Amino acid sequence: MAVATDVFPDLLPVAGIRLGTACAGIKQSQRDDLAMIEMNAEAVCSAVFTQNAFCAAPVTVAQSHLEETAPRWLLINSGNANAGTGSPGVDDARSTCHVLAQLMAGDAQEVLPFSTGVIGEPLPVSTITQALPQLVQSLGTASWQQVAEAIMTTDTVPKGAGCSIRLGHRTITINGVCKGSGMIQPNMATMLAFLATDANVPEEALQQCLLTAVETSFNCITVDGDTSTNDACVLIATGTSGPAIHPRSDDWLVFQTAVTDICQQLAEKIIQDGEGATKLMRIRVEEAFTVAEAHQVAKTIAHSPLVKTAFFASDPNWGRILAAVGRSGIDALDVSKISIWLGEVCIVREGMRANDYQEQSGQAVMNQNEIIIRVLLGRGEASQQVLSCDLSYDYVRINAEYRT
Amino acid sequence: MAVATDVFPDLLPVAGIRLGTACAGIKQSQRDDLAMIEMNAEAVCSAVFTQNAFCAAPVTVAQSHLEETAPRWLLINSGNANAGTGSPGVDDARSTCHVLAQLMAGDAQEVLPFSTGVIGEPLPVSTITQALPQLVQSLGTASWQQVAEAIMTTDTVPKGAGCSIRLGHRTITINGVCKGSGMIQPNMATMLAFLATDANVPEEALQQCLLTAVETSFNCITVDGDTSTNDACVLIATGTSGPAIHPRSDDWLVFQTAVTDICQQLAEKIIQDGEGATKLMRIRVEEAFTVAEAHQVAKTIAHSPLVKTAFFASDPNWGRILAAVGRSGIDALDVSKISIWLGEVCIVREGMRANDYQEQSGQAVMNQNEIIIRVLLGRGEASQQVLSCDLSYDYVRINAEYRT
Repeated sequence: MAVATDVFPDLLPVAGIRLGTACAGIKQSQRDDLAMIEMNAEAVCSAVFTQNAFCAAPVTVAQSHLEETAPRWLLINSGNANAGTGSPGVDDARSTCHVLAQLMAGDAQEVLPFSTGVIGEPLPVSTITQALPQLVQSLGTASWQQVAEAIMTTDTVPKGAGCSIRLGHRTITINGVCKGSGMIQPNMATMLAFLATDANVPEEALQQCLLTAVETSFNCITVDGDTSTNDACVLIATGTSGPAIHPRSDDWLVFQTAVTDICQQLAEKIIQDGEGATKLMRIRVEEAFTVAEAHQVAKTIAHSPLVKTAFFASDPNWGRILAAVGRSGIDALDVSKISIWLGEVCIVREGMRANDYQEQSGQAVMNQNEIIIRVLLGRGEASQQVLSCDLSYDYVRINAEYRT
Repeated sequence: MAVATDVFPDLLPVAGIRLGTACAGIKQSQRDDLAMIEMNAEAVCSAVFTQNAFCAAPVTVAQSHLEETAPRWLLINSGNANAGTGSPGVDDARSTCHVLAQLMAGDAQEVLPFSTGVIGEPLPVSTITQALPQLVQSLGTASWQQVAEAIMTTDTVPKGAGCSIRLGHRTITINGVCKGSGMIQPNMATMLAFLATDANVPEEALQQCLLTAVETSFNCITVDGDTSTNDACVLIATGTSGPAIHPRSDDWLVFQTAVTDICQQLAEKIIQDGEGATKLMRIRVEEAFTVAEAHQVAKTIAHSPLVKTAFFASDPNWGRILAAVGRSGIDALDVSKISIWLGEVCIVREGMRANDYQEQSGQAVMNQNEIIIRVLLGRGEASQQVLSCDLSYDYVRINAEYRT
């Protein structure tokens, strides 16, 4: 019932990157549950991780490895999040890194581990390590789509996006895959994203590029910066495409825009595949004092179960939207300046139902699969968009049945 | 499917109070949708209202009337919230007060209006005013249960609580009724509560008493102080039972405790009747630095859709509870000091699954209708309890179908 489509884009290879996948049997199914991304020795790697105080063991290990040396390999498993597993979980994550490093004749610190799946179960280390030779053997044969499939949990479709951009005489490729279908917020072992480009980018600039891209993409589908125990987003730049792109150059702007666009496409795919989602909601708050304020109002609407169930029912219940705006905690909100639009239909003007609003016009918008909700606060010039989806029977079913 | 029970308690009359109900036909059903509470001229009346910036017209009018004079009559309608109706809505609320005051030979300012139901529809003023003579005629004949029934919206049962306490030679009665079955937070035209006692209490002390009682009852079933556009809680003291109870006396403590207890009973009934609820969750956060911190953690757990669906599925998914604690925004949280109990079963110790935890023990607790979740933060001595309920198919159904 998700609004996600089944079409995985054709992604070009990224020079300097080799991919591998394998089926270790962590999940009951016969699907691949291990993926590996190898980067060339010259590659630069940036990453952002969950802010959750209960961050999972692989997050702890990946962060510590990143501080010690430049990574060469990403090792990703689905089926088990290795979260809430305390210090034994950290040892387990290190063990898998160690075994993979031995197979690759490298150091364990050069491996970054990522896990997604059930929280609180011990990582099945031997199940994973037994499959690592096979995983290594597959290196260079797997596609981005196979990686996207191997990292799926409750996702119904693999998620990828890519583009090529011309910068002077160079053509640069940027690819990304992600997993995640948590509906309301990616707050449980939900979101992993891996991007790679052949651009040549200095390390600090790459990290800044990733932060900027995440801010208006993955962070606009979450609550309060609420992130799961395992969330991570990695951007690798192999540098094989030629001379470095210098920050503050025009080329940089083009590159940054492309990376942000890929992240936004991936974030949108996560929402489109929201658990049980039948409708995509684009919530745009405009005329706010600050972007933070716009974000706050948009999130409050995006997470209101009453708004979400109304959208599931295709009910243009603007009263619920209005109530969410009212409780979003904005200082000195003048409700008489607020207007709300569903698509092209103005439903609230000056804080009350628009005089010319006809229920059937609102209904026509609500019947669509993708709905733009615009809230104009009449306070300033800042705006922010948050993506969300509706709350359906299937959301309850999927999350009630997930572990059984 | 709600866990609410059908038994309305036997409530004694409160001297000085007369009740009335009528069917105006605001809702399609033939059920009463108007209620009226008359208090004696000597009564003292305190009230708390929603903090929502989009507060409904009746809230604006009631607050303004309270500032002008002492109230004599509460006029309550269900079926229409008169919210999001702008200044015409305020005029409408004033009109109904005016007509009732004429019938009672009083001033419009002596009437406090309350509305609950659909947001954004104009209040059907003439439908209401035509039924006011009948409502007035019923004064003195209606019971507390009839009032509780007349103010219901999606509630499946009328909600009331009452007690008698001995203070020296006096017997004091305290009664309350309420409506509300919003599941996740009473954030849409959801909660109204009316309490009356024959105690003799000075006005300022009564207001303080109500604030204290609400703090650990109705405010512990909401998010962030998130309240609906219409929420209100009123406490009337008719003073007919004898000499005033003086604040800071032992009698005062007994009285305060009894009022708080009634509010807690009513709040619990709201959660038990949560839309689609099949389980009552008592979330107790202990060993926090401050009560506010404990409240914050408890609310984050209480509002996690992932936790709520796990409870619906009777799944002891402690990973979801742990993830919610981790993202609740507590400064410098040391996860290795945290333990979590389901009933008498310790499921998490030192931030990870307890060594001696057996899934079947957790399962046994989860199969119960009422579950105590205790989270010990290991940081201090403050604690707070928040009540919540699970997230079921029926929640989606009720809120998707509410307006159709």
